[in-house]
Amino acid sequence: MAYHWRQKVLFKHCDPAGIVFFPRYYMMINDCVEAFFFDVLHYPFEEFHKEAAGVPTAQMETTFHAPSRHGDWLDFALQPLRIGRTSLDYGLVATSDSERRLSAKATLVHIKNYVPDPWPQDVRDKISEMIGDEK
Amino acid sequence: MAYHWRQKVLFKHCDPAGIVFFPRYYMMINDCVEAFFFDVLHYPFEEFHKEAAGVPTAQMETTFHAPSRHGDWLDFALQPLRIGRTSLDYGLVATSDSERRLSAKATLVHIKNYVPDPWPQDVRDKISEMIGDEK
Amino acid sequence: MAYHWRQKVLFKHCDPAGIVFFPRYYMMINDCVEAFFFDVLHYPFEEFHKEAAGVPTAQMETTFHAPSRHGDWLDFALQPLRIGRTSLDYGLVATSDSERRLSAKATLVHIKNYVPDPWPQDVRDKISEMIGDEK
Amino acid sequence: MAYHWRQKVLFKHCDPAGIVFFPRYYMMINDCVEAFFFDVLHYPFEEFHKEAAGVPTAQMETTFHAPSRHGDWLDFALQPLRIGRTSLDYGLVATSDSERRLSAKATLVHIKNYVPDPWPQDVRDKISEMIGDEK
Repeated sequence: MAYHWRQKVLFKHCDPAGIVFFPRYYMMINDCVEAFFFDVLHYPFEEFHKEAAGVPTAQMETTFHAPSRHGDWLDFALQPLRIGRTSLDYGLVATSDSERRLSAKATLVHIKNYVPDPWPQDVRDKISEMIGDEK
Repeated sequence: MAYHWRQKVLFKHCDPAGIVFFPRYYMMINDCVEAFFFDVLHYPFEEFHKEAAGVPTAQMETTFHAPSRHGDWLDFALQPLRIGRTSLDYGLVATSDSERRLSAKATLVHIKNYVPDPWPQDVRDKISEMIGDEK
Repeated sequence: MAYHWRQKVLFKHCDPAGIVFFPRYYMMINDCVEAFFFDVLHYPFEEFHKEAAGVPTAQMETTFHAPSRHGDWLDFALQPLRIGRTSLDYGLVATSDSERRLSAKATLVHIKNYVPDPWPQDVRDKISEMIGDEK
Repeated sequence: MAYHWRQKVLFKHCDPAGIVFFPRYYMMINDCVEAFFFDVLHYPFEEFHKEAAGVPTAQMETTFHAPSRHGDWLDFALQPLRIGRTSLDYGLVATSDSERRLSAKATLVHIKNYVPDPWPQDVRDKISEMIGDEK
């Protein structure tokens, strides 16, 4: 089952052509991941960053299917795909009124004190469940 | 031959972990592409955007090899890889003191009035030359 | 009566010191103003920007009282103070758990085709009402 | 004597109206201040932030005189106005082809471990000299 997160396209997101400027989609993706960690994993960015942990992105592949305009509502669906000892692969699709705007696949890594660190067990369990549901 | 562009990692690029926050790398990549169009292609963003043209990114794959810290100087090497009728594939590698920080492959599309539009001939010629040099 | 708008401090807002980087407060202020135009004035940015109108900021004074940290919830209270033929002065205070974080006074101007343009009557009426309520 | 710093208006700075979006001017102002600390004060942000020091902005007043367009070159002139034990007031004017685009007055505070901290003596000396030159 995917996690859904919504974002309205605001003035600040748009470029002189009146559409979302692509680097700003990555800010939205990060906000979506941050909300996922808070809402679903109950492992908030604001907590673990205090303890020298983090989840930097190691890889990201993105396809931009169609432009998004100011005022559009975007639905981001984040689906965990694979969990490693310290990594997480996820897929993400953003749609507006069911038109696909972008799709992405990314890998992030759980680190502590700058080195990869195993996921906390309860986080791993919740992610595994979401992957299992999908299969 | 690759086009080289340099950017110092500034305070604004860095996150609470003191390293470049990954969405901001895409801003740098866009700045690099904008500089390439100005410096090499003599086809400035500020000119063609006035005429309802643009070069939106259609695809982007990025690997983040190592973190970049405040004060690091990044060298971005942009290499055109393939030119289509309306598209351009390029590779990009960012290094700091020859340590690889990120590598990317992207496709952008030349559009006019919201539809793909053939590259101007002189732009195509310059890009083709850079691709040829590489081979 | 002031308009209230809330924003959680996210990872992207924070600097290497772990607090909101001040330029990003201005993004929040703009988001708050955009939400105010949508929610209260029913004059959405996404509509009037299509018609070559806009509300650029002419002046802004800001005092940053105390830092905001990742995870804080900010309450922005926007109070219209004075409406001119084409301008609007407003005050804004952002608090977190009733601690004042920033206060601002700003003037924005309603423009059309790059020149100041009188406010639509219904927009003027709603703003005037909010100013009157305050007195 | 003022410190001068230049920035070209890039695609990323511009909004759907094709002009610099005002919050992004504050990013430029911060970049200018960061460059001033590096170039003139030899007190680089990337060094002192490692030691729990910082120079957060306490106050900022800005007037936006005229819009800046994609491709414009902006010259920022930063003039220290007053130095306190832990604070610095500066004025800043950005022009393009001698047209004034924005002017600002700001106060920043030198902090260490979250509390105001006296300026290092050599930094104080350089700033005082620039203020004296002005008088």
